[in-house]
Amino acid sequence: MFSPALDVPPVEVVLEDKLADWAVTLERSVLRQMIGVVSRPGILSFAGGLPAPELFPTAGYAQALADVLAEDPRALQYSPPFEPLKQQIVQLMAGRGITCTPEQVFLTTGAQQALDVVARLFLNPGGPVLLEEVVYTGIQQVVASLQPQILQVSTDLETGMDVAGVAAWLAAGYRPGFIYVIPEAHNPLGVSLSLAKRQQLVALARRYQVPILEDDPYGFLHYDGQPLPPLRALDDAWVLYAGSFSKIMAPGLRLGWLVAPAGLVARLTVVKEAGDLESSGLTQRAVAAFLQSGGLPAHLAGLRHAYRERRDVMLQTMAATFPAGVRWTSPAGGMFVWVELPEYVDADEVLKVALAQEQIAFIPGRAFAVPGHNARHCLRLSFSNVAPERIADGIGRLANVLNQFV
Amino acid sequence: MFSPALDVPPVEVVLEDKLADWAVTLERSVLRQMIGVVSRPGILSFAGGLPAPELFPTAGYAQALADVLAEDPRALQYSPPFEPLKQQIVQLMAGRGITCTPEQVFLTTGAQQALDVVARLFLNPGGPVLLEEVVYTGIQQVVASLQPQILQVSTDLETGMDVAGVAAWLAAGYRPGFIYVIPEAHNPLGVSLSLAKRQQLVALARRYQVPILEDDPYGFLHYDGQPLPPLRALDDAWVLYAGSFSKIMAPGLRLGWLVAPAGLVARLTVVKEAGDLESSGLTQRAVAAFLQSGGLPAHLAGLRHAYRERRDVMLQTMAATFPAGVRWTSPAGGMFVWVELPEYVDADEVLKVALAQEQIAFIPGRAFAVPGHNARHCLRLSFSNVAPERIADGIGRLANVLNQFV
Repeated sequence: MFSPALDVPPVEVVLEDKLADWAVTLERSVLRQMIGVVSRPGILSFAGGLPAPELFPTAGYAQALADVLAEDPRALQYSPPFEPLKQQIVQLMAGRGITCTPEQVFLTTGAQQALDVVARLFLNPGGPVLLEEVVYTGIQQVVASLQPQILQVSTDLETGMDVAGVAAWLAAGYRPGFIYVIPEAHNPLGVSLSLAKRQQLVALARRYQVPILEDDPYGFLHYDGQPLPPLRALDDAWVLYAGSFSKIMAPGLRLGWLVAPAGLVARLTVVKEAGDLESSGLTQRAVAAFLQSGGLPAHLAGLRHAYRERRDVMLQTMAATFPAGVRWTSPAGGMFVWVELPEYVDADEVLKVALAQEQIAFIPGRAFAVPGHNARHCLRLSFSNVAPERIADGIGRLANVLNQFV
Repeated sequence: MFSPALDVPPVEVVLEDKLADWAVTLERSVLRQMIGVVSRPGILSFAGGLPAPELFPTAGYAQALADVLAEDPRALQYSPPFEPLKQQIVQLMAGRGITCTPEQVFLTTGAQQALDVVARLFLNPGGPVLLEEVVYTGIQQVVASLQPQILQVSTDLETGMDVAGVAAWLAAGYRPGFIYVIPEAHNPLGVSLSLAKRQQLVALARRYQVPILEDDPYGFLHYDGQPLPPLRALDDAWVLYAGSFSKIMAPGLRLGWLVAPAGLVARLTVVKEAGDLESSGLTQRAVAAFLQSGGLPAHLAGLRHAYRERRDVMLQTMAATFPAGVRWTSPAGGMFVWVELPEYVDADEVLKVALAQEQIAFIPGRAFAVPGHNARHCLRLSFSNVAPERIADGIGRLANVLNQFV
């Protein structure tokens, strides 16, 4: 038996000559580190993109799990993608105005895996990808290991992604592996794209034969009437649509899906199998049973009602208390409000004071900035996981902090 | 609203200039395609590496899920790795002779993800990796997308991996991203490495500073006394150990773990987050509750008893009925027997006849061969998911088929 010698070097020494720039990638996970720091007890947190756990359909899902385990002897076995769940997702997608077939539904271990398999399939190492300058950190982590050339386009608090900027890259001859878009209730901005911009985007995708990866975790969480059609409703050939059960049921499920051309599914399967073989068959069956029970529409109505109130309280309190010179978005859905402070203010400094004086947390905007873009004067507030009365109190106290900087 | 034109090209056209050789990768998934084909009703299948579902701890796990959902309001929320589960795994590892701390336990979405994150971290695109010429298809799928140089070593029905071959590659100056080893009850061979070979392997890893990825899904399924110590028990600096709940509880959980140096965990976390953010917090809590209930040792004893009988029936029937000129392994654990036919026999042809005449299925050996290695005269039999009396009957009928070829 060997006894480890004290002078054995650590395994990390061999990482130094590995291509992947993990220093950069580690920096990308700044968001999650921050969330850890600011999730201390006693902190009133507008930080994480967390749904409200008191609104989870816990009892209904527990019943679905119990039923499936009692009745389906294959529930815990290796198994192919569960066909009844695909059919339920087809119906769910119809509610978003998307027409698709079960053969076009590809089940994933959360929407994050949907982004990952698309990136692994469509993005060459070192190749170009098109992102907004401020965008969901998860897509940045996905592409970082491929060390891509990031074709940046700007994004606007009121109108979102600069689609003319997308057209300019494509007209200049660039062919990104894909264009990443969150048309509805953008993370972190909260903005939704106009119908004209949506139509322009899919027209560009078709004209230049560049796939769009449409990320739609918040599409079912809209608070002001009906949302506009997703990109996939406008084009079924060049739009890959990523959906998620995390925000409409619960993140602990780790279940999402892609709607993709049926001709891609065999390739997507190979990539996904390398990552985790398959998504939990038990979870697939239990979610299908929950959806089959018919409880989702009422559950979604309850979510929209609760989140709408939280959003309204946040926006009203901001309008009443935030100092002049501060701008913010007015989300029609989702979980986030994006705040732009005057450029001379550093949101990291604001966070320090907010934590120390008021025990208030948020995420500084730089966590969402692509490399080279400056968002240090911005911050993201999440309203989904704080009760309305605490939102009013916390935003008022955050305004006190902002008054020290602006 | 756009109406899709009929002349829009499919999104697949842009894949033609993508680096990843998906044709090769698709070929790698031949195994799962075969399993689909041979899983038709009425087929007596020795094909898939499936545990026996009638032995799953379904009632105990259902109770654990119900308890967790009733008592833990965070069970369905995003959450960091569940500390009590890490502590349970530390205890589990002690049962394999491995001393580790919770800080060295990294939770993954099945052991497949453990292999994937290690490959993404340690293997450069196009870089070398060391594999046996016949080896688990899942690791081949993992590395395929990185288009590695595969440093092959031979493997033997009685003694397993050619460790002298490993030494030769390293002495010649090659530095693979990692060395992949299944020391206990190899998939597909069923062979286990001697203590001397285990000691030589970890000595090579330390001497040349090359990490070993030890894959141990079957380490708890040994049928002849105590198994030898895993590599991780011999070295804690250069061995990354992958464990799985799929074979000791159930695959539908999709939960596994790495035991790795604590200094690697931050990097592993970044890679894992890109893939699926986190593994299901509900599953983590329910598995921890199941382990906490203390039922695993008795469950494992039952599994060993049942699988031992199935292995014995298979080996005894093979010895009594298979024609001369056929060799096979004698597994001390796991789920598989590897069969070598005379080189002039093509296992694909045997499979066709076995399916047509006897409704018997297995996996041809070529599914497990690394590119360039010929295993067309080999096949893998799995004994874990067939009742003993059906094994005796099915192996006898397979012998009839073999007699037509040998």
